[in-house]
Amino acid sequence: MALMETAASMIFTDYSSSSSSTARLLHFTSSRVQKFPNTISHFRRSNTLKFGISNPKFPRTIITYCSSASPSAVQVTEEASATIIDGKRVAKDIREEVAVEISRMKDKIGIVPGLAVILVGDRKDSATYVRNKKKACDSVGINSYEVRLAEDSTEEEVVNHISKFNDDPSVHGILVQLPLPRHMDEEKILDAVCIEKDVDGFHPENMGRLAMRGREPSFVPCTPKGCIELLHRYDIPIKGKRAVVIGRSNIVGTPAAFLLQREDATVTVVHSRTENAEEITREADIIISAVGQPNMVRGSWVKPGAVIIDVGINPVEDPDCTRGYRLVGDICYEEARKVASAITPVPGGVGPMTIAMLLSNTLLSAKRIHNFS
Amino acid sequence: MALMETAASMIFTDYSSSSSSTARLLHFTSSRVQKFPNTISHFRRSNTLKFGISNPKFPRTIITYCSSASPSAVQVTEEASATIIDGKRVAKDIREEVAVEISRMKDKIGIVPGLAVILVGDRKDSATYVRNKKKACDSVGINSYEVRLAEDSTEEEVVNHISKFNDDPSVHGILVQLPLPRHMDEEKILDAVCIEKDVDGFHPENMGRLAMRGREPSFVPCTPKGCIELLHRYDIPIKGKRAVVIGRSNIVGTPAAFLLQREDATVTVVHSRTENAEEITREADIIISAVGQPNMVRGSWVKPGAVIIDVGINPVEDPDCTRGYRLVGDICYEEARKVASAITPVPGGVGPMTIAMLLSNTLLSAKRIHNFS
Repeated sequence: MALMETAASMIFTDYSSSSSSTARLLHFTSSRVQKFPNTISHFRRSNTLKFGISNPKFPRTIITYCSSASPSAVQVTEEASATIIDGKRVAKDIREEVAVEISRMKDKIGIVPGLAVILVGDRKDSATYVRNKKKACDSVGINSYEVRLAEDSTEEEVVNHISKFNDDPSVHGILVQLPLPRHMDEEKILDAVCIEKDVDGFHPENMGRLAMRGREPSFVPCTPKGCIELLHRYDIPIKGKRAVVIGRSNIVGTPAAFLLQREDATVTVVHSRTENAEEITREADIIISAVGQPNMVRGSWVKPGAVIIDVGINPVEDPDCTRGYRLVGDICYEEARKVASAITPVPGGVGPMTIAMLLSNTLLSAKRIHNFS
Repeated sequence: MALMETAASMIFTDYSSSSSSTARLLHFTSSRVQKFPNTISHFRRSNTLKFGISNPKFPRTIITYCSSASPSAVQVTEEASATIIDGKRVAKDIREEVAVEISRMKDKIGIVPGLAVILVGDRKDSATYVRNKKKACDSVGINSYEVRLAEDSTEEEVVNHISKFNDDPSVHGILVQLPLPRHMDEEKILDAVCIEKDVDGFHPENMGRLAMRGREPSFVPCTPKGCIELLHRYDIPIKGKRAVVIGRSNIVGTPAAFLLQREDATVTVVHSRTENAEEITREADIIISAVGQPNMVRGSWVKPGAVIIDVGINPVEDPDCTRGYRLVGDICYEEARKVASAITPVPGGVGPMTIAMLLSNTLLSAKRIHNFS
């Protein structure tokens, strides 16, 4: 079950992109988003969500009944509706800020940040993610370097490429696209990335520093960094609030809990072995969900006025869509938006933030390596 | 406030001693303690506890009224009384197990584990702790090496000694006694201890591995390891239970939370910025408190039947004692023992476990380095 949580999140979501310093993560001139803008997002409802990731802890029947017509323990009115946290817009702002900084650095010291991506194997989704990262780098002026290795490559080959990038002064960030082929030791390969260029923030030392008081991580993992950045940009207070993080993966749940605690939230981590997950979640002022379970968190799990950050990106069957499926989060959006005060949509919430944070981390790395502020 | 918590715990308590692997921490033939033995411990009551560590979050008045005569929100009966978790006895068992293993290793491969302790400055309490560690090493057959440096030593001198011990094959564990003199960078010095000999488990990479799923720390920090070991030895279930850790220091609270979560508890970390600490703590099946606040946790904070591990060791004025003070925990023992199902006393609870775990970690290190099982 332990691994299932992480694996589930990895199957359909690309979290393999990184992020940067700590606390107040972006140090650029911040063009704050208007507080609680009334962006409208459109979602269809479906009563039959058959194409999800299975989890014996959370039976499919729960998912099946997720619609606004389903019974809910929480009093909701049809009129009430949460502020939609517009991740797409925030991510666009961040990219623009990153581009401005990159241009300034180039002008002042002639340095252009570089990001190296290593892709092993032929997974189409991974190839798409890598292509998107390359495009994003291009759009802000980061040089990107790509190595594609065959599915049957050896660990040694991958590590050799990492070593070269570790030594290459034009590379400031190194990403290994996950998942790796099964015959490879992910831990060994990820640990080969030198901590100064680990823009994904996945190195255990980095995670330790993130967890420890008085220590600063080199990089904050991109997806949780994006979650907290959304809270910041929408002026949502964290200090002293009760937060529940659903999911305890190394790449989202665990670092998200650390980030919330660093900002003085009182954090509870809910996971697959938690009893009364609904009741505990209902105590939260802030919910961050990252389990990869479509519509798992119902309206009845949400305290009225809570803020919800939905990291899940789960495909569910939908014959009305030309692709045959659509993407939904871990949160039953239609129910939750009537109870919460603010919520991220899926897609268009946390998703676009991950790559924006990767760009931000790569910039941060280049600035740090070249002592540019 | 952040630092205050850690500092408070450090002033009167010696947590600078370590521990070992993970999950099931001791792999010796375990002579399990009889389940819930009826050990009796004696404590005097005092209504005036003036000699505590101050914390604006928890006003002194709370402490002042801690006695069995004080009002409590929880229904307690004079008869009800928790099982006393006898840390002194468990620690003794562990030391005996360690001694047996050390003897076996010496017989089989001729290796004797070695522990090096570096003490900087003239603090009497630190000198006492180091002396106690040396004695404990002697008692189980661990060679101990000690370096004492003057208060005005340089960081470089301390790091040089650490480097020598890093390279010395007869040394399997290295401890730097905390606190260090103010002019020294604790982070820099602790990080100089190579992770393979960091029997305190304070290295950030070690902490990261402890926090991460699928990773194993080289060593588990001694005091939290001792807390979990007490739960194990008393057959107290952790999986699926709600746990509250009070305090978020790097050396106790944070790693204790990781250990509980590794065993599938649902963990909330309560700290100085937490609102409704009492209410949240009352939800816990297991409470681990490590804040250094005498008698802070009242009976009303405790859910009936909860298990309490009290890490605090706080001196409070007591003219009846020949020393003029006595030691109390973070938990108002007289109240809590009537509500809880099991509780550690202070002294004689977690305290003796810390050094026992240090010995256990040193043995583990020697076994690992010499590939002995």
